[in-house]
Amino acid sequence: MQKAAQLGFGAIYVSEKYGGTGLTRLDSSIIFEALSRGCVSTTAYMSIHNMCAWMIEQFGSEEQKQHWIPSLASMEKFASYCLTEPGSGSDAASLATTARCDGDFYILNGSKAFISGGGDTDLYVIMVRTGSPGPKGISCILVEKDTPGLSFGKKEKKVGWNSQPTRAVILEDCKVPVSNRLGEEGQGFNIAMQGLNGGRINIASCSLGAAQASLELAANHLKVRKQFNKPLAEFQHNQFKLAQMATNLVASRLLVRKAASSLQQNLPDAVSLCSMAKLFATDQCFDIVNQALQMHGGYGYLKDYAVQQYLRDIRVHQILEGTNEIMQLIVSRDILQN
Amino acid sequence: MQKAAQLGFGAIYVSEKYGGTGLTRLDSSIIFEALSRGCVSTTAYMSIHNMCAWMIEQFGSEEQKQHWIPSLASMEKFASYCLTEPGSGSDAASLATTARCDGDFYILNGSKAFISGGGDTDLYVIMVRTGSPGPKGISCILVEKDTPGLSFGKKEKKVGWNSQPTRAVILEDCKVPVSNRLGEEGQGFNIAMQGLNGGRINIASCSLGAAQASLELAANHLKVRKQFNKPLAEFQHNQFKLAQMATNLVASRLLVRKAASSLQQNLPDAVSLCSMAKLFATDQCFDIVNQALQMHGGYGYLKDYAVQQYLRDIRVHQILEGTNEIMQLIVSRDILQN
Amino acid sequence: MQKAAQLGFGAIYVSEKYGGTGLTRLDSSIIFEALSRGCVSTTAYMSIHNMCAWMIEQFGSEEQKQHWIPSLASMEKFASYCLTEPGSGSDAASLATTARCDGDFYILNGSKAFISGGGDTDLYVIMVRTGSPGPKGISCILVEKDTPGLSFGKKEKKVGWNSQPTRAVILEDCKVPVSNRLGEEGQGFNIAMQGLNGGRINIASCSLGAAQASLELAANHLKVRKQFNKPLAEFQHNQFKLAQMATNLVASRLLVRKAASSLQQNLPDAVSLCSMAKLFATDQCFDIVNQALQMHGGYGYLKDYAVQQYLRDIRVHQILEGTNEIMQLIVSRDILQN
Amino acid sequence: MQKAAQLGFGAIYVSEKYGGTGLTRLDSSIIFEALSRGCVSTTAYMSIHNMCAWMIEQFGSEEQKQHWIPSLASMEKFASYCLTEPGSGSDAASLATTARCDGDFYILNGSKAFISGGGDTDLYVIMVRTGSPGPKGISCILVEKDTPGLSFGKKEKKVGWNSQPTRAVILEDCKVPVSNRLGEEGQGFNIAMQGLNGGRINIASCSLGAAQASLELAANHLKVRKQFNKPLAEFQHNQFKLAQMATNLVASRLLVRKAASSLQQNLPDAVSLCSMAKLFATDQCFDIVNQALQMHGGYGYLKDYAVQQYLRDIRVHQILEGTNEIMQLIVSRDILQN
Repeated sequence: MQKAAQLGFGAIYVSEKYGGTGLTRLDSSIIFEALSRGCVSTTAYMSIHNMCAWMIEQFGSEEQKQHWIPSLASMEKFASYCLTEPGSGSDAASLATTARCDGDFYILNGSKAFISGGGDTDLYVIMVRTGSPGPKGISCILVEKDTPGLSFGKKEKKVGWNSQPTRAVILEDCKVPVSNRLGEEGQGFNIAMQGLNGGRINIASCSLGAAQASLELAANHLKVRKQFNKPLAEFQHNQFKLAQMATNLVASRLLVRKAASSLQQNLPDAVSLCSMAKLFATDQCFDIVNQALQMHGGYGYLKDYAVQQYLRDIRVHQILEGTNEIMQLIVSRDILQN
Repeated sequence: MQKAAQLGFGAIYVSEKYGGTGLTRLDSSIIFEALSRGCVSTTAYMSIHNMCAWMIEQFGSEEQKQHWIPSLASMEKFASYCLTEPGSGSDAASLATTARCDGDFYILNGSKAFISGGGDTDLYVIMVRTGSPGPKGISCILVEKDTPGLSFGKKEKKVGWNSQPTRAVILEDCKVPVSNRLGEEGQGFNIAMQGLNGGRINIASCSLGAAQASLELAANHLKVRKQFNKPLAEFQHNQFKLAQMATNLVASRLLVRKAASSLQQNLPDAVSLCSMAKLFATDQCFDIVNQALQMHGGYGYLKDYAVQQYLRDIRVHQILEGTNEIMQLIVSRDILQN
Repeated sequence: MQKAAQLGFGAIYVSEKYGGTGLTRLDSSIIFEALSRGCVSTTAYMSIHNMCAWMIEQFGSEEQKQHWIPSLASMEKFASYCLTEPGSGSDAASLATTARCDGDFYILNGSKAFISGGGDTDLYVIMVRTGSPGPKGISCILVEKDTPGLSFGKKEKKVGWNSQPTRAVILEDCKVPVSNRLGEEGQGFNIAMQGLNGGRINIASCSLGAAQASLELAANHLKVRKQFNKPLAEFQHNQFKLAQMATNLVASRLLVRKAASSLQQNLPDAVSLCSMAKLFATDQCFDIVNQALQMHGGYGYLKDYAVQQYLRDIRVHQILEGTNEIMQLIVSRDILQN
Repeated sequence: MQKAAQLGFGAIYVSEKYGGTGLTRLDSSIIFEALSRGCVSTTAYMSIHNMCAWMIEQFGSEEQKQHWIPSLASMEKFASYCLTEPGSGSDAASLATTARCDGDFYILNGSKAFISGGGDTDLYVIMVRTGSPGPKGISCILVEKDTPGLSFGKKEKKVGWNSQPTRAVILEDCKVPVSNRLGEEGQGFNIAMQGLNGGRINIASCSLGAAQASLELAANHLKVRKQFNKPLAEFQHNQFKLAQMATNLVASRLLVRKAASSLQQNLPDAVSLCSMAKLFATDQCFDIVNQALQMHGGYGYLKDYAVQQYLRDIRVHQILEGTNEIMQLIVSRDILQN
């Protein structure tokens, strides 16, 4: 990871002033796509880490930026994004973890679920309730790993994403200085959602890499493997399937790139495009990888072959960073309010 | 039509030198999408006319350009593209219509099928066999309407595309001067295919317009029509369907625009991208319009409502300008030869 | 039609006592599938007529049965089913047409929309409100064609189903004897829904016939039509598509037949199975016919070829007799209440 | 396993005379569906074992039946089916493993790939080449585990089907008595294919069980899990998805059962129906389980929840016992030769 950071992958779309790489969302998408060809799970974690670094730059005070971002950019420290709770997933605004203000400190209580990196990472960017119910009562607080009252659940066993741990994050009278709050009180939900807009592009980009790699693996397998005295690549069914996979992949990529450009420019359609990109690309890429697995025949089912790893890893992209059902909700609101 | 020509829609991507509008493929795509919201069938015919004008500019002699293009650009005259035959559709290179050279003339015999505008238009851009079997024996010859030996079949009754006639074009000892040949002998198949690359973008653009208009009609209907004491737009199934339709439409549009840009720049991926764009956009847009019809309930089945017209008109886009099966063939070849 | 009635197709699942044919729902499904190969639109109207005859037998008094059924069975008279209104489609229980009791008569006011056969048929089986809002305030009343106060809207222009007229049915102080009421006051919604259970099997069966015929037409076309020096039937893409179409058709047929058997036996799963069968078969068969059209290439778009007729005719099966969205609602309720 | 055998699951469709249970193919389908709700992988192996027992009864001599079947029926001994080779999968008839006749013995050389139970089971039903190339040169030979020259490859790591080992079976001058040959020389391919017809029903039945169980798990989760202040089951998108899943599952089940009945009666459509059932049910059930996983949200990705196990286990059903591509080949041949 730290070698990756030396290449500038620790805080890609954070400004150079704080040790970031100063590239755009579009650059980031291209980078995450390329890296995920190697390992989706590792790249996906990196993308979350990048999202956290960006959130601190975007919403933090000058002091917070100088304090936190350099070590995140160099990946001496790793960050985790903590929004989901056991009782609030898609309905994130109903979160129940509380931060009670006590002088110069917040006292945090509650728990966060499905936290990527949880237990292994150093900094937890946690959405908590400091005010009334609903999205306006939420704040964003940074909690360091060794803070008393912070503990972790068991390491979850998952279908994929196995190069990174997933654990619950548990807060029991966990006391952190008020100066660890990112942005204003009540701004937390907004911070969380803005982070996710980019997060959705990033995750979708990881699906692109898996699909591109799987498509190439499948095409190579079809060229080499012979049945009925000719390579599988000479069978029209396989040819046409490859064409459809490639077409859907190019369409996915164009949509992800378009969303990245729009978000970079803060265009009014950015939120809807990020949701469309995540919905379309993660669904289509799963189908592409699944079809690539089928093209491998029995070999596709063996762990010796990479295609099944891509399948298992990207399956969760349709669920996290906002399920694809939530993406449809966001897009439909945009259509119907016009 | 001539009013449209005054707006510059008669030869959009032909240079101004010959009376064209001098815009790009990308501009053309945007224009055809916009026009097809009004009438797919009329716009689709215009796009074929534009393709013919471009073919003359691209492959014609200076004299041919000056002779033909201005009246096409002003739509005083209309052109038809004649490739398909009763016995050669997807396998265009096997065409059987012959042009025998006789001094300064060609004597044409054979027939062309499914010719848009056939019988009503003034100029026929006809692919004929002047040499050996296969693509290298094909030439492209311009035939004017009143040429003796040129006649037309009955007006076909079609599911849609009804604002333009479709007829067979019949050639019986039809004598045209050698100077009517576009390009060299043997270059005809190449000319036909280069025309179609742009034609595929154009037709796909017409599907985009139909889908966009249908999506808006459906959204409006859902907002107005109430059942179970609330507008249909408040039912989640409808909301999510709208989101999927809009997402697929944006993906289609991005792919069509990307292909247009690539073709404009003559990039190596242009042919494959044009095929992908035509395949993806015409398939997706048909599904979008079909779903929009479903959202209209019984009203969608009535000719008083526009959505059924869009459905009937764009159904043929999956078939013509190279079937979507041929698109898969082209794309797969590109993948497998890498 | 009267020739068809002589073969027993006027009241197939009505008992012989009243002139019916005395066959089962399963027999009816097989018959409607077979007839719809000839003409979907005509068969579909016949199936509605059959549904009305069955409703009279099931819910009528002895006198009503003897009075009405024989002439329906012989198709000397034709019947129309009148439930939908301009303002109540999927939410049928909100219908607004009223029947006010006035001595021995009902006075009917309101209008019914999308009535198959409307204006041409002799007997109108009309759901009206005699009591409170909601399903329990609805009654079913038979109205003869020449009754004063009964009139009809314009003949609708439709995408298909063109061998039968569709018109609005308009009731203005239309006076009918109380003895024309089918069943008890308040039983009308139940009668309407029970009729539709069978109606859904019938309509789904008409889709089966269209799909079977289209599959055969496509297979024949593929065997005869040659491109690239061999019949289209030798291309693997076409072979595999045919296999998928045939498989989906057999699955559709099995589900329709199963629903018919279950309804015949009044099994508890009958309502859910009728909805599943209508949902699955009408969706799948549309796709099968649409794919068969694609296999015809340009010919599939011409009215000289039957496949486009099947496509246009069965498109409405996904909408009427309860939209396929309502089918999903019915099935989901059944799943979630268990 | 032996407890299962006591319940009659060791040789379900083998006659009681040899220790089998004497039930039908239809009974077997119902049993395998029910068992696979508990564990797909274990049930799937049992179904292969059953297939082997049936092959011995169907094609064996009286002596072979008496010698082998009772211990298979009681599951004191387990059997493996050995057809696929590293170089011959879909093109099974090109298999290269040889059996050279040497007096009263065959000398076997070659290797078999992806053998379920391989290395752990007691009896190997092996297709070998005893004659000319192609299907007519193949024979079926039974090899016991401890036979010299029989060895096994490494235990494969797989996406699912993990309760049973998969290994290559290696034959190096492996000497078995001629009396171990099942049926005549040259009959082996026919034996193998007849076994697979039933095997396809069995595997499809295992997919049904996984889909039914997953559907129930999803419905329960939707009822219990709340977001936005109401159970997920009250969201229309989820309701309609459940309805589609249930409908597709019922259609799958009807097709599997129909194929089982047809095979039991040796009807002419049995082979095609077995292929259709395997194609349709394994594809649809994968989609159902995948959708059920999605309905679980993040929990669906955790190994604590059963739905991901069903997904991983049934993925291979689209590949083995003849890939679903081969199923389409078989069905299309049947359509096109009519």
